[in-house]
Amino acid sequence: MPTHADKLFINIAQLVTPLRLGMHRGGEMAQVRVIPDAALAVRSGEVVWVGTRQDWRGQVSEVIDLDGRAVVPSLIDPHTHAIWAGERLDDFEARAQGASYEEILARGGGIYHTIRCTAQASVEELVALACPRILHLMRSGATTIEVKSGYGLTPEAELKILEAIAQLPAAIARQGGVPTDIVPTLLIHVPPREGREDYLRAVCHALIPEVARRRLARAVDIFIEREAFSVQEAEQVLRAAKAHGLDIKVHADQFHAIGGVELAVRLGARSVDHLEASGEVQIRMLASSSTVATILPGVSLHLGLPPAPARALIEAGAAVALGTDLNPGSSPLFSTQLAMALAVRLNRLTPAEVLVASTANAAAALGLIDRGALVPGARADFLVLSSPDWRDLPYTLGGQIVDAVYLSGERAV
Amino acid sequence: MPTHADKLFINIAQLVTPLRLGMHRGGEMAQVRVIPDAALAVRSGEVVWVGTRQDWRGQVSEVIDLDGRAVVPSLIDPHTHAIWAGERLDDFEARAQGASYEEILARGGGIYHTIRCTAQASVEELVALACPRILHLMRSGATTIEVKSGYGLTPEAELKILEAIAQLPAAIARQGGVPTDIVPTLLIHVPPREGREDYLRAVCHALIPEVARRRLARAVDIFIEREAFSVQEAEQVLRAAKAHGLDIKVHADQFHAIGGVELAVRLGARSVDHLEASGEVQIRMLASSSTVATILPGVSLHLGLPPAPARALIEAGAAVALGTDLNPGSSPLFSTQLAMALAVRLNRLTPAEVLVASTANAAAALGLIDRGALVPGARADFLVLSSPDWRDLPYTLGGQIVDAVYLSGERAV
Repeated sequence: MPTHADKLFINIAQLVTPLRLGMHRGGEMAQVRVIPDAALAVRSGEVVWVGTRQDWRGQVSEVIDLDGRAVVPSLIDPHTHAIWAGERLDDFEARAQGASYEEILARGGGIYHTIRCTAQASVEELVALACPRILHLMRSGATTIEVKSGYGLTPEAELKILEAIAQLPAAIARQGGVPTDIVPTLLIHVPPREGREDYLRAVCHALIPEVARRRLARAVDIFIEREAFSVQEAEQVLRAAKAHGLDIKVHADQFHAIGGVELAVRLGARSVDHLEASGEVQIRMLASSSTVATILPGVSLHLGLPPAPARALIEAGAAVALGTDLNPGSSPLFSTQLAMALAVRLNRLTPAEVLVASTANAAAALGLIDRGALVPGARADFLVLSSPDWRDLPYTLGGQIVDAVYLSGERAV
Repeated sequence: MPTHADKLFINIAQLVTPLRLGMHRGGEMAQVRVIPDAALAVRSGEVVWVGTRQDWRGQVSEVIDLDGRAVVPSLIDPHTHAIWAGERLDDFEARAQGASYEEILARGGGIYHTIRCTAQASVEELVALACPRILHLMRSGATTIEVKSGYGLTPEAELKILEAIAQLPAAIARQGGVPTDIVPTLLIHVPPREGREDYLRAVCHALIPEVARRRLARAVDIFIEREAFSVQEAEQVLRAAKAHGLDIKVHADQFHAIGGVELAVRLGARSVDHLEASGEVQIRMLASSSTVATILPGVSLHLGLPPAPARALIEAGAAVALGTDLNPGSSPLFSTQLAMALAVRLNRLTPAEVLVASTANAAAALGLIDRGALVPGARADFLVLSSPDWRDLPYTLGGQIVDAVYLSGERAV
C-alpha cells in the first residue's frame, strides 16, 4: 500500500477491471475483478492502489466522491478509420433502396468516392472533419483511439492523412477542450487501378521508411482480400514495416479467408482484424499465436455480414479485442460503448469478456502495456458510469451510460 | 402564406418531412418533401408555414438561425415499457453465458422478477426510475412517447403503474427541466399463474372502466401469444376497452402467429406491434386494413429474433411504424434514433420510409392527428440535427446526431 496519493476516488459502488495488464486469452477473458464499495488512488496520473474503501490507509491530497456509481477502465478503440472526407450517405440510401455494391461503384460511389474527396481535402479540412468523430468516441468512453490512414492511393496522400492524424490531439484539445490519445497506423488499403507494382515499391522503399523516420505511425496495416492485396503483396509490405521497426497488423478474412490470418501469425502481427470469414484453421492458428483477434461488429450490423466467430476464438484460447471500425462505408459506428453492446448480441461475448476485449486486449492489439486495467502502475484512465452496476455498460443500447471519462486521473469528458 | 408568425427558423440546410399528417401506406412511405435552404414559421406552437427561405413574405417577431443544419419532425415513439422496477442485468449476463430462458425463469429471473419488484415499488420510486429513461429517449429525438403499464399482475398494480405514468411529465419537467408528451396505455401483459378467469373478469369489469373514467390511458393493449393470452381472452378485453371508448392495440406474432393480427384487424386496432413471426396471410390482412404495423427492431437485435417483415409489409401496402419497445428484458434500447438506424439495417427500410415510420405513422399508431409532419396546422415539434444532411439521422450508429429538440416551437432539449 502506498503511503500517499494525489487523489482518492471514493464511493464507487463497483470497481471492475481485468486482473492485470496485457493480453488475456480464452478463459482468462471471463475473469474480471469486481470490488464492491471501492476506492481508487492515483498519483502522477497512475493508479497506485485499488481496494475496498475501508482498506485505504494512506495520506491523500484530494478526495473525490463518485456518488455510488460504477467504475471501469476507460475503453480503447483499436481499429478506426476516423479520418476521411467524402460522406457516403448517397451510398447508404442507394443500398437501402436495393442497389448492389457494383451499381454503387458504377455510379461513382463506394470507397473511391471517399478516396477522391480525401485527396482533395487539405490537412486542416481533414482534421476539422475528424474532430467531432473522435469526440463522439471519447464521450462513449474511449480515451485511446487508433486512427488509420488508408484513403490515399498515393504515398503523398497517405502522408497527408498521417499528418492530419498527428494534428488531431491538439485540435481536439482546442475544439472539445479535452485530452485524448490517438495511435496512428499507416494502412495500405486499396490498390491503385493502375501501376500496382510501382505503388507497392514506393510504399516499401519510400513511404514506410519516411513514416518510420518521422514517427507518423506506430504500425503498418494492410487489407488482404480478393479485391485488395494478395498475401504475397502483403508480405512485402509487412516485412518492410518490420525492417523499419514498426508494428504490423492485418485486415483479414473479411469476405474470404485467403491466407491473411496465416501470414499475420507467421510474421508476428500485433493483431489481425475482421475475421468474419475465418474458419477452424484460422481460429486454431490465432489461438496458438500471440496475435490478437480483433472483431468489428459494427460491420456485421451495417452490411449484414455474418459476425466474426468470437465465441469459437475464445473457446479455442485466442485473445479477442473489439473495435468500432468507424468508417463511412461499412461501419458508421460512433460509439465504442455501442460496439461492446453489439459484440454481446452479435458475437455472443459475455459482459466480462467484452470488457476485457475493449480494455486490456485492445491495448495489447496496439502494443500498449501501460493501460487497460485498473492495477497499480497502470495509467489512471477510467470511466464513471451512470449506474451502480457495471454490466449496464455492455447492456445499454443507445442512451448515455458513461457519465464521466478520466484520462491519467484527470477528468477528460 | 400567413401574414405573421411568432418565430421564423432560418438557415435550415434541408427541411425534410412527410408530405402530410396521418397514416402513410406502402409506396407513400417513400415520399418525403425535401426543402433545401428552408425556413419554418411557427405561431402559437404550431407550424404556419414551411418553404424556401426566400419565399417567406410575412412579418415575424423573432428570427432563429439554425446554422445550416437539417430539420426533421421530432420523433414519436409509439411503443415503450419505460416504467419498471427490477433490473434484468443478471438475466442479461446469464443469457450471454448460455443460460436458456427456462433456466433464467427457474432461478427467479425473467419478467416475473420485474413484476415482483414493480409490485414492491411506490409510485414515487417508479417515477424516479422512469425519468432518466424518458430523458434518454427525448435526447435521442422523441417528443411524444407512449408508455405502457403491464408489469402488474393485479388491477391494483396496473392502476399504480398508470398513476406513475400520469406523474411522469411533471416529474421530468422538474428533474430534466424539459417538457414532454407521454401517451399512456394500459397493457394486459401476462396472465397470473392462478385465477386467470377471475383476473380477466376484473380487467374487463373493474380495471378498464376505472382507467377510462379516470382517463389514465388512451388505449388498451394485450399480449396475444402462446405463453400469454389467447385470441378469445384478448377479444373480451379489447371489446371491453372499445365499449369504454378506449383505443385498442395488440402485441401479436412475436414468437408465433396464433391469430393476434387477425383479431386486431377485425376489431379495428390502432396498431398491431411486433410481427416477427407474421407470414403472408397476416401481411395481406394488415395491408388491407387501417391498422398500423409497428415494428420493434431492438428486440430482434437483443434477443436474436428474426426481424419483422417490414419490406414485405410496405410492398403489400401496409402502414409501418417504428418503436424502441424500451423494456429491461427484451429491448434495452434507450434511443428512438437508434431504433431508426436499426430498422434500416435489420428491417431493410429506406431512410425516407424510416422517417415516415417514426413520425407520421407513429402518430397514427397512437391516434394522434396533430403531429408527425412539418405542415401548416401541425404541432411545431422538430429536431435540429448536427448535420446538413437529414439522412445522417438513420445512418448514424451511436454518437449524438440530434443537436436540439423542439416541442410546440420551444426548445425542449
